[in-house]
Amino acid sequence: MRFLIIGGDAAGMSAASRAKRKNPDLEVIVLEKTRDVSYSACGMPYNIADPERDMDELVVRRAEVFIEKNNINLLIGHRAERINTGSKTVSGDTLDGRPFSFSYDFLLIATGAAPVMPDLPGFDLPGVMPLKNLEHGRAIKDFITKNKVKKAVILGMGYIGLEMCEALRERAIEVDMVKPRKPFLPWLVPALSEVVYNEVVQNNVRLYAGSSVKKIISTDRGLSLECDNITLETDMVIAASGVTPCSKIASEAGLETGVSNAIAVDFQLRTSDKTIYAAGDCADAVHVVTGKKCWIPLALRANRAGWAVADNVCGTETRLDGVAGTSVFRVFSLEVARTGLNMKEAEENGFDPVENTIKTRSRAHAHPGSTTIYVSMVGDRTTGRLIGVQMVGQEGVAHRINAPAVALHSKMSVQAFAQCDLAYAPPFSPVWDPMLTAANQLLKKI
Amino acid sequence: MRFLIIGGDAAGMSAASRAKRKNPDLEVIVLEKTRDVSYSACGMPYNIADPERDMDELVVRRAEVFIEKNNINLLIGHRAERINTGSKTVSGDTLDGRPFSFSYDFLLIATGAAPVMPDLPGFDLPGVMPLKNLEHGRAIKDFITKNKVKKAVILGMGYIGLEMCEALRERAIEVDMVKPRKPFLPWLVPALSEVVYNEVVQNNVRLYAGSSVKKIISTDRGLSLECDNITLETDMVIAASGVTPCSKIASEAGLETGVSNAIAVDFQLRTSDKTIYAAGDCADAVHVVTGKKCWIPLALRANRAGWAVADNVCGTETRLDGVAGTSVFRVFSLEVARTGLNMKEAEENGFDPVENTIKTRSRAHAHPGSTTIYVSMVGDRTTGRLIGVQMVGQEGVAHRINAPAVALHSKMSVQAFAQCDLAYAPPFSPVWDPMLTAANQLLKKI
Repeated sequence: MRFLIIGGDAAGMSAASRAKRKNPDLEVIVLEKTRDVSYSACGMPYNIADPERDMDELVVRRAEVFIEKNNINLLIGHRAERINTGSKTVSGDTLDGRPFSFSYDFLLIATGAAPVMPDLPGFDLPGVMPLKNLEHGRAIKDFITKNKVKKAVILGMGYIGLEMCEALRERAIEVDMVKPRKPFLPWLVPALSEVVYNEVVQNNVRLYAGSSVKKIISTDRGLSLECDNITLETDMVIAASGVTPCSKIASEAGLETGVSNAIAVDFQLRTSDKTIYAAGDCADAVHVVTGKKCWIPLALRANRAGWAVADNVCGTETRLDGVAGTSVFRVFSLEVARTGLNMKEAEENGFDPVENTIKTRSRAHAHPGSTTIYVSMVGDRTTGRLIGVQMVGQEGVAHRINAPAVALHSKMSVQAFAQCDLAYAPPFSPVWDPMLTAANQLLKKI
Repeated sequence: MRFLIIGGDAAGMSAASRAKRKNPDLEVIVLEKTRDVSYSACGMPYNIADPERDMDELVVRRAEVFIEKNNINLLIGHRAERINTGSKTVSGDTLDGRPFSFSYDFLLIATGAAPVMPDLPGFDLPGVMPLKNLEHGRAIKDFITKNKVKKAVILGMGYIGLEMCEALRERAIEVDMVKPRKPFLPWLVPALSEVVYNEVVQNNVRLYAGSSVKKIISTDRGLSLECDNITLETDMVIAASGVTPCSKIASEAGLETGVSNAIAVDFQLRTSDKTIYAAGDCADAVHVVTGKKCWIPLALRANRAGWAVADNVCGTETRLDGVAGTSVFRVFSLEVARTGLNMKEAEENGFDPVENTIKTRSRAHAHPGSTTIYVSMVGDRTTGRLIGVQMVGQEGVAHRINAPAVALHSKMSVQAFAQCDLAYAPPFSPVWDPMLTAANQLLKKI
């Protein structure tokens, strides 16, 4: 039996390794268009920040190891182009132009997501680069070194843009950030997004929110970005305006796609064709709070979904609950985290949401090193259920968010969450952890 | 209506403040035997560590503020001795010997816990001191300064002993620690307790586990502790051999006591006399994992129980779920945390427990500053339920433990916990947070 996988990143390689471990007799073929598999894509900004580090440090396991030790038929430089669901074959071309075609018994589409590159003049110029795969990471790092980059413009102010902005500032590169719409981190409540905004500005980053790029032109000094109202001169442009699921191969094969054009999968990660699975950034998921489909491309889900597909292919029926949309990023001294829904999302999903934001201290009364922490919590007035939490602070935010994430999976009420016996010691939190204070305050409004 | 409270610490003052806030017409009297109310007792070791800090920084709100601003009749220096449940009165003596008696409509016993002081020769000598209330903290700090303490012995190796050992080492005081039984932190799995043991020893603390103190004698150079096999010369002795609930006043009044002699209370914090409540370190609680009574004296529960008593006294029926036994302490560079039951406790409570311990990294692959983190997880073979988690590591342990704590409150299975959508970013964790890896590994054994 042959298990064919398109894409050798988190979901694809997780599935390949686990399937081979569970069933060594299974033939596993992975088609990967680049030359890199199994690397920490999220680690790229931190690697770029340090000129001494080699980008290949981020590779968790090299292709040869998968081939030789795991007996996976891993084919790098193989770009899959078409799925024929009738003949159960996948065909395409290698990077050096040779056509290939493989049949499958089970197929996994793990094509990931691609950076959104605007169709505007100048986005093909040297020095205008996205950051999604390791080739992009290497290209950015090489470009900085070779061109002695002093100034950069980042398009987009999402978490990748902000992580890159920190990385470039660490290398003493001047950074301008531009995005079309005014609100900064619009998914955060304004009280929290303002804190992050100020932190970025205090690190001498210029933020131009509400300005669209019209074109990029090459000048004798580098690149010139013509935007609404402003023109920015720069050595380099990082395109971090979001990503879109690589679902074209699926939709062209007649597979269902749904929210955000992601490939629609069931709880077992099966597409509308029951011999074809999809996992990772190209596929959708059920949100544990709304019970509805969502597209939240994140690394943990990709890995977990890869495993679940392998289990299902190997005959161990496995069902994934869904996602809570838990995420965290660091920008300069701040940790920014969320889980569940914000007010807007809650309203759109039929809840009667109530929100409350608190500003408190990260450690116990009079304990040295205490910093400010902000917690915004959303509950449902009708059912009392906890719907979402956002946090910003200098410490303890990244790990704190996991407690309400678990509560969302359990469909806990704000009342029940407020009763949880959380850990306390003066170096780590006040007696009432900020999350409990947030819940206690929110309860008064519900 | 009069609400009388014995004890002005966490539970007592939480109850007094909240009751007065909810019902300003309620007469609230608090009888406190010391002169301190509302202070961060857990902060004392960290305060002692720094000679520049005043111990009174730990006072959250002074007695006068409670009296003048909150209209609470707070009587310091009032030691309650007897409860007469028939006449509904509490009597006792002030520190200067005047007798007093107060009637009550509702009574709250919030007498806390007292340090265990062995009934052995020499425990009354100057320089032999417990650490429970602020007077103890001041006494220790003054003694260190006035006597230019160079050496100390700590009796007990629980979290207070270990926090004090870190505090004293920070002041360059030599520390010996002694306890009667061999196992170090016996509630931790050996793999984890060994890590903590090594950390303490590497900080030049001498640990004598398995040696009982026989007597303390005064010598011309200070104090001499005669223990099994060893004699320790020292300037000071900190007695940190555990605490016991101050329940005598309750049992003498005929109120029920139970596990560890703590005052037995129901979910509404009522004792066996329905006009009398008990809260804080003197009272028991229901454990959310076992559903049985337990005595786990911790600050959050005391505060929360105080609030719940106030609500009940003021007519808002309030019920507390129970405790998960979540706790954390820091010792030198390590964070040590637990929630729920360990193997022994699980077996004693009728579970069929399975345990698994993992050793992994605190941050993503190749991310700088990553440290080792240990997670031990216990599940029930029969039901698949998550029963307890222990963690030791240099970062992220204190806040991580709250995620499984929430899971215990929700009676989540290990399988469901393993499916939780936790936060990931390279500076904070691997893609699979150590807790998820622990759950995945444990699932293989269940």
